[in-house]
Amino acid sequence: MSNFGSDNVTGAHPKVMEALAKAADGPAIPYGGDDWTARVETRLRDVFEAPDLRAFPVATGTAANSLALACVTPPWGAVLCHQDAHVNVDECGAPEMFTAGAKLIALPGADAKLTPEAMAAPLALAAARDVHRVRPSAVTLTQATEAGTVYTPAEVSAIADAAHGAGLAVHMDGARFANALVSLGCSPAEATWKQGVDMLSFGATKNGCWAAEAVVFFKPELADGFEYRRKRAGHLVSKMRFVSAQLEAYLEGDLWIANARHANACAARLAEGLTAAGVRLAHPVQANEIFVHMPAEARDRVKAGGFLIIPWPDLGPDAVRMVCAFNTRDEDVERLIATVAGA
Amino acid sequence: MSNFGSDNVTGAHPKVMEALAKAADGPAIPYGGDDWTARVETRLRDVFEAPDLRAFPVATGTAANSLALACVTPPWGAVLCHQDAHVNVDECGAPEMFTAGAKLIALPGADAKLTPEAMAAPLALAAARDVHRVRPSAVTLTQATEAGTVYTPAEVSAIADAAHGAGLAVHMDGARFANALVSLGCSPAEATWKQGVDMLSFGATKNGCWAAEAVVFFKPELADGFEYRRKRAGHLVSKMRFVSAQLEAYLEGDLWIANARHANACAARLAEGLTAAGVRLAHPVQANEIFVHMPAEARDRVKAGGFLIIPWPDLGPDAVRMVCAFNTRDEDVERLIATVAGA
Amino acid sequence: MSNFGSDNVTGAHPKVMEALAKAADGPAIPYGGDDWTARVETRLRDVFEAPDLRAFPVATGTAANSLALACVTPPWGAVLCHQDAHVNVDECGAPEMFTAGAKLIALPGADAKLTPEAMAAPLALAAARDVHRVRPSAVTLTQATEAGTVYTPAEVSAIADAAHGAGLAVHMDGARFANALVSLGCSPAEATWKQGVDMLSFGATKNGCWAAEAVVFFKPELADGFEYRRKRAGHLVSKMRFVSAQLEAYLEGDLWIANARHANACAARLAEGLTAAGVRLAHPVQANEIFVHMPAEARDRVKAGGFLIIPWPDLGPDAVRMVCAFNTRDEDVERLIATVAGA
Amino acid sequence: MSNFGSDNVTGAHPKVMEALAKAADGPAIPYGGDDWTARVETRLRDVFEAPDLRAFPVATGTAANSLALACVTPPWGAVLCHQDAHVNVDECGAPEMFTAGAKLIALPGADAKLTPEAMAAPLALAAARDVHRVRPSAVTLTQATEAGTVYTPAEVSAIADAAHGAGLAVHMDGARFANALVSLGCSPAEATWKQGVDMLSFGATKNGCWAAEAVVFFKPELADGFEYRRKRAGHLVSKMRFVSAQLEAYLEGDLWIANARHANACAARLAEGLTAAGVRLAHPVQANEIFVHMPAEARDRVKAGGFLIIPWPDLGPDAVRMVCAFNTRDEDVERLIATVAGA
Repeated sequence: MSNFGSDNVTGAHPKVMEALAKAADGPAIPYGGDDWTARVETRLRDVFEAPDLRAFPVATGTAANSLALACVTPPWGAVLCHQDAHVNVDECGAPEMFTAGAKLIALPGADAKLTPEAMAAPLALAAARDVHRVRPSAVTLTQATEAGTVYTPAEVSAIADAAHGAGLAVHMDGARFANALVSLGCSPAEATWKQGVDMLSFGATKNGCWAAEAVVFFKPELADGFEYRRKRAGHLVSKMRFVSAQLEAYLEGDLWIANARHANACAARLAEGLTAAGVRLAHPVQANEIFVHMPAEARDRVKAGGFLIIPWPDLGPDAVRMVCAFNTRDEDVERLIATVAGA
Repeated sequence: MSNFGSDNVTGAHPKVMEALAKAADGPAIPYGGDDWTARVETRLRDVFEAPDLRAFPVATGTAANSLALACVTPPWGAVLCHQDAHVNVDECGAPEMFTAGAKLIALPGADAKLTPEAMAAPLALAAARDVHRVRPSAVTLTQATEAGTVYTPAEVSAIADAAHGAGLAVHMDGARFANALVSLGCSPAEATWKQGVDMLSFGATKNGCWAAEAVVFFKPELADGFEYRRKRAGHLVSKMRFVSAQLEAYLEGDLWIANARHANACAARLAEGLTAAGVRLAHPVQANEIFVHMPAEARDRVKAGGFLIIPWPDLGPDAVRMVCAFNTRDEDVERLIATVAGA
Repeated sequence: MSNFGSDNVTGAHPKVMEALAKAADGPAIPYGGDDWTARVETRLRDVFEAPDLRAFPVATGTAANSLALACVTPPWGAVLCHQDAHVNVDECGAPEMFTAGAKLIALPGADAKLTPEAMAAPLALAAARDVHRVRPSAVTLTQATEAGTVYTPAEVSAIADAAHGAGLAVHMDGARFANALVSLGCSPAEATWKQGVDMLSFGATKNGCWAAEAVVFFKPELADGFEYRRKRAGHLVSKMRFVSAQLEAYLEGDLWIANARHANACAARLAEGLTAAGVRLAHPVQANEIFVHMPAEARDRVKAGGFLIIPWPDLGPDAVRMVCAFNTRDEDVERLIATVAGA
Repeated sequence: MSNFGSDNVTGAHPKVMEALAKAADGPAIPYGGDDWTARVETRLRDVFEAPDLRAFPVATGTAANSLALACVTPPWGAVLCHQDAHVNVDECGAPEMFTAGAKLIALPGADAKLTPEAMAAPLALAAARDVHRVRPSAVTLTQATEAGTVYTPAEVSAIADAAHGAGLAVHMDGARFANALVSLGCSPAEATWKQGVDMLSFGATKNGCWAAEAVVFFKPELADGFEYRRKRAGHLVSKMRFVSAQLEAYLEGDLWIANARHANACAARLAEGLTAAGVRLAHPVQANEIFVHMPAEARDRVKAGGFLIIPWPDLGPDAVRMVCAFNTRDEDVERLIATVAGA
């Protein structure tokens, strides 16, 4: 099977495995008191040019998002998000569980992007302090988005300004943060806190790790209570070095950037090739995901060719999603293009 | 540092690392749809002689316990446990979070063991169906216990009979299940469902894995809703094969038994040697944990010798805990004995 | 002030006060073991021609709705509702709290009415049993609606059929059930369980009581756990006869019907008079609420005339809501019409 | 039946009913915006000599306790209480629900009183900030206690000092606060905030109202979020004047003091008479509750005489509880004494 189904269909990058193998011997203080975990926080401070940030490893993106949002959202609060956001659609109510029942306010927006305009009505609600209504407390935006698009720094900044103006915190779900960053070509700081992002779910699982994310607080005071929340949610891994060693390898020598650059390049080539073959894109291709409308015959050929791609009925009966990953092979990309083209 | 502090101070067993390395290549269906996960369930059915059991991998013991208990405990329910139980003392309220606010009823008992006698009053409460009071819904017992002792099958059976008689489900926290099993010398089935255990947190992390536990339902109907609960708690690992590959290696060739046998043997030798050196045991040593009263001078020598042992003030100012693990070296055991003896 | 602002701006009906005064003397078993409470259940069984129904008094409509929904919605469940529904907009996340974090899925629909068409997509989701997504478990419809309209029995039946077909329970928020019933002219049974309603929040507060609602289960098995839920939510009033005495007086001699008939008649006259005065209705007037577009000058005259009416910006800057109640005086209705007409 | 079973077996005091009757006419702003509610807060500020206090009416004591505790206890927090406390035993897990899963730490103590000594170990835990353990965040003491005893101001002060020293808030469950106050003979301020009480559930239901309590915050900043919590718990009564009118009548002319004084005097006379008749008290009688050991023959005579008293098996098979109330008749007290005495 040639995987274009999802980036979590992949295994782990060899360098991540090497790091794990090296970390397997010898004792280490459990529950995050180990050296790997300390080094990861230090490294992220460098990467983000943010000497005060706090970073906490967890094993899943759902945990990262829910724990971060719970730190800034009381039970009577609400989180503004795009209606297609992973937190809203694909986490089975995890944010609701971790916040003890806060509401997600799902908003529309082209290409899976939130806009200040769509946020205006709920932000007015936040100002009203009406006890009959939940109080918007946070906004979360996914970078890269669920449509494979990327917010520009200016777009992030506009959203963050609107949110902060109404007293909301700003969270970024960065399950594919590396792909977005490579696409933007700016620094990690410019992509996040310099635009007003307060908290980041720094994803690594989809881009070469096994199960590793970091919850990053650019405003350390927002992390108050985080460690209690993580523990009682069962997300304080006892042999934490095992998560942190993945993250260390991921950051080492900018492996994360290289991996994302490769995945994005594959996606760009795929988009180019498919477009040339007459396939219509459903969203601009700005990171490592591609959404297209593909005729049934082409889909049949793709399936027969041993490729995994995913039907995407929300975009129409002929829509499919393809995802490129750190280990997508160039020859598979070319073969997929040729297969679609019917060559 | 020679680790006698805890079994989660260790890394992973080489065979677990090998299995992970082998699993790292190639695509696999995410979220538990992979072959490793299917094989682990099949293997556990064999191990437990229970063809209908359901088994679900998770990454932490706290998650395993809380998810299992939540399946059988409504928000107005209560879970009977020993007052020293990990779920009561060391999980920062995780069972309360996962059950949406059920109560733990902490009961006394020598050597960290529950007894039907201690359970009598709350079981009467369960029968009363008094809406002013929480309704006991489950009992959980830790095997091996937090005192390093082991319930006999007869003890488990007596507890389970009492619980079932009052309509409660029976959960076993098996964070150190392998150590208990080796100590008992009976089959996995005889240690669990044949005595009335309904659900088992089958621990592997402490005994050679990185982060791998399985929630085992001997009564499959109790698992209804489990998969939703796991997902919304952020515990459905996307690259699930990585947890399952650990478990597969752990079960393969009875590595789990061998590891536990080694750890228990080290603990037995240590207990023998320390007793001979005049140290008094605080609990019988029946698995891989040793609790002793140790004079201050001996503790100082131990510390100076580079050993990690843990003060245990609940048993008195002179009490310490030592834990042997799958990778404890015999020479370290002997050296620790000699150090305590002051030789 | 002449109240057309809301039906909860009113006090209590004299007959309700008489009943309370009579109930004030002498001892009674607390927590709902009293005779008033038993009689109310019996009376509701007669009223609804449903000898097996269970009915539980509570003091607020938010409690009634949330407790009922929690009985049929697991934490990973979802409740389908109209986007303007009281449970979605005006209860500050109470259903989310009582269900331990379930989601409300807010759906569009003209005149604040749900339709099977709007429910189709989430009902398909319920069938899919996808653990990544919350599982629709209940639908709730408000009768009379938040727009002052009334579902016909056929409309209720169509919604209930669709819901039941996908395994969802059907709840009716009857905060203004009496007003809807009078409007329909059918029997209570025909308005509810004969169309497939499983649970009803039977409202009395807005129609002449102080603080009295009954949670009615037409399928008694759905009430399993209700009494525990009510107690732990703090809604088991100790001197329960005080709630039940209100309900008994409310039902006695069909006071509830007479009250609602009066309120509806006032609203109908008001709608007629305002329409004749050139005011445009925003929704059909089918119960005791009136939503209109009213020119600014008319609104100024109304305010100057000492009338309480409520701006309703969701319907536009010129929109207002007026509500008639059991104690609205005919002369106030006429005076309001004349004031708007500028006579 | 002559009620000595409980103070919530009673109805309402005539003055409370008069006030309700007067409040029943005319419009009032709903949801607590009415004049009655404002006056109650003002009156409580006078009564407690605390011009900044915030007071919020609710309808049940369980709601009052749970809402107050939730304001100061995070989900990973813990509440210290006596093991017999109403919040621990009789509220079916309400504090756990309202706090989203915090733990109650139940402590022993003679005559149902907490002591700083019993609190020492959990307070040390609070200081440790160990993420594996819940963090004690509040202490609650019941005044008068569940044993009918009364904390002295010095005892309250010692508890509050210990609590504050470890960063915990101090809550008083004053379901029978009036009875305690009359017993102490001090001012409301001296019984509460002058000893360090931060929050009070000011009970009125048991002492002459229908369903009326006030949550009183002596430190107004602790009330942040209270109004959202009350609403989403379904405890914001829409026709709030009806709760507040009860409270106003209760406070007017010190009705609350007179009622409690009568109840306490009846209890004192009863204790004196029963003791003279050879009955042994199980606890000192300091408020309106009496716990005694009563021979079976005496209990039979009491039952035959038409008295409601309650067996209290926690104190032994021969133990019973008797409660005097605002409307207990002196002749019933004398008749009960005579009946027990076998005269």
